[in-house]
Amino acid sequence: MAKILVFGHQNPDTDAIGAAIAFSELQKQKGQDTEAVALGKVGEETQFALDYFNLQAPRVIAKAGDQTNDVMLVDHNEFQQSVADIEDIKILSVIDHHRISNFQTADPLYYRAEPVGCTSTIILKLYKEAGLAPTKAVAGIMLSAIISDTLLFKSPTCTQEDIDAAKELANIAEVDTDTYGLEMLKAGTNLTNKSAEELMDMDAKSFPMSDKNVRIAQVNTVDLEEVFKRQTELEQAMEKANKENNYDLFVLLVTNILDSDSELLVVGDPIEKIEKAFNVTLNNHRAFLKGVVSRKKQVVPPLTESFQ
Amino acid sequence: MAKILVFGHQNPDTDAIGAAIAFSELQKQKGQDTEAVALGKVGEETQFALDYFNLQAPRVIAKAGDQTNDVMLVDHNEFQQSVADIEDIKILSVIDHHRISNFQTADPLYYRAEPVGCTSTIILKLYKEAGLAPTKAVAGIMLSAIISDTLLFKSPTCTQEDIDAAKELANIAEVDTDTYGLEMLKAGTNLTNKSAEELMDMDAKSFPMSDKNVRIAQVNTVDLEEVFKRQTELEQAMEKANKENNYDLFVLLVTNILDSDSELLVVGDPIEKIEKAFNVTLNNHRAFLKGVVSRKKQVVPPLTESFQ
Repeated sequence: MAKILVFGHQNPDTDAIGAAIAFSELQKQKGQDTEAVALGKVGEETQFALDYFNLQAPRVIAKAGDQTNDVMLVDHNEFQQSVADIEDIKILSVIDHHRISNFQTADPLYYRAEPVGCTSTIILKLYKEAGLAPTKAVAGIMLSAIISDTLLFKSPTCTQEDIDAAKELANIAEVDTDTYGLEMLKAGTNLTNKSAEELMDMDAKSFPMSDKNVRIAQVNTVDLEEVFKRQTELEQAMEKANKENNYDLFVLLVTNILDSDSELLVVGDPIEKIEKAFNVTLNNHRAFLKGVVSRKKQVVPPLTESFQ
Repeated sequence: MAKILVFGHQNPDTDAIGAAIAFSELQKQKGQDTEAVALGKVGEETQFALDYFNLQAPRVIAKAGDQTNDVMLVDHNEFQQSVADIEDIKILSVIDHHRISNFQTADPLYYRAEPVGCTSTIILKLYKEAGLAPTKAVAGIMLSAIISDTLLFKSPTCTQEDIDAAKELANIAEVDTDTYGLEMLKAGTNLTNKSAEELMDMDAKSFPMSDKNVRIAQVNTVDLEEVFKRQTELEQAMEKANKENNYDLFVLLVTNILDSDSELLVVGDPIEKIEKAFNVTLNNHRAFLKGVVSRKKQVVPPLTESFQ
């Protein structure tokens, strides 16, 4: 029988990669034949974490059905964020911490979602429920995922469970969370050697809202102005992405990880849904969102509601 | 703040009722203000179990939004099987053991599905994970739910986890599972005092398949012929139900709980999807399905596939 493939969402972030590795390793400890794979190349933040803990980046796949019949999803469930042929293969399990949407199966499955900041927090529970523990390296990448998803515990998505899990994992991984965490996050903010197209695609997800196709990308920085120096170039890339992929609305969330604020850059229609969602007026396609750092908790829900 | 309402699917069976009671009691033990309610009157099997363990049937609600903002679903997720205004209220959590379909949320939630025979098996795990235990009466209704969903462990949906959970619950409830179980199942097969319309509706669920609306009802019996003596009357009720509710296809699964076989009665279109799904030829609208007792595992998946 072919291996079971375990993967996170397209444009993988550190949780998508870390959760795939950690959940696959748990399945192997339980005697399953699994392999962690990825739906895209890892970013610089994730590469920093993998290097730090001496782990290999999972190989990238474009389709799953040519290699396996069975898959396990981590850190996502919406089909448009998953592997291209997701509708043709059997989903054995899902471990996630997002809303559920555009997801369905023909058969019962194992589905574990909890409203916590990071998938790896749930996976640590699964290790403990099975009476098992992650290795030092796997604990390291799980810790990195929690730091990444919670922006070092500053995001409103962060729960006490994430903080407790990070503490346990830091012990196993033998690192100082604050020092390591800031170093890792900064590794992901080096945007100067990236094209505008690359920036658009680093951490981007599509969301069907009403009859519109909304693309929401997020980039982290330590200096908002450094990103907005390239505003014209960014807008051109967003317009091009809209045209090529039939996105109606492209929202770029530029997040200052030191101040925990974001600025939006918006291209497409309907603009008024954005203004209503965040109670702002766009000025030169931009709006500053004080205290907003979480796409999942602070951007998708108000925007979904605004479209209803 | 209004109470959180906890409920199972429409046309509640013993698991829908038992899981609502058990999960609500767990939430109360954890300090939440919850109430178990039901989306319909309980059947005779469930009433037998409630009476046996001195429990009240949950009150029946038609809508939730006039009483609360927050609900917890057990034993179902598909919106067409849920409360009428499910799309307007916030789903805090789902505990289920079915496929996921026609379900979505705007926010992250707690979702726990496992491919086991009964929701109550999962809920017993949740008690244990929280370091808590069900009371004697609650253990009794949870045990009844497992017996009901697995037809006393004979259904192919039954897993070792269901058997183990039933053993633990029987100890707490202080009953002999086999004796009590058969008595309870038989209480649910008394169909003589039911109209054909009532039979159609006792344990019926709707499933969108391709562009068709498929209704699948199941009745348990200890004598198939006793049910099929009323075939003409049943067909008339099914035709009427199709017309009134825009069902395309009505499938009645009559299950002999002693022999663990079923016979189908089918009214509507497309008939050929049924014949293809089960590799049978309908004769006088009927087909015998050897060894088939589970709608979830042996009827819905092949039929879903047949429609694709």
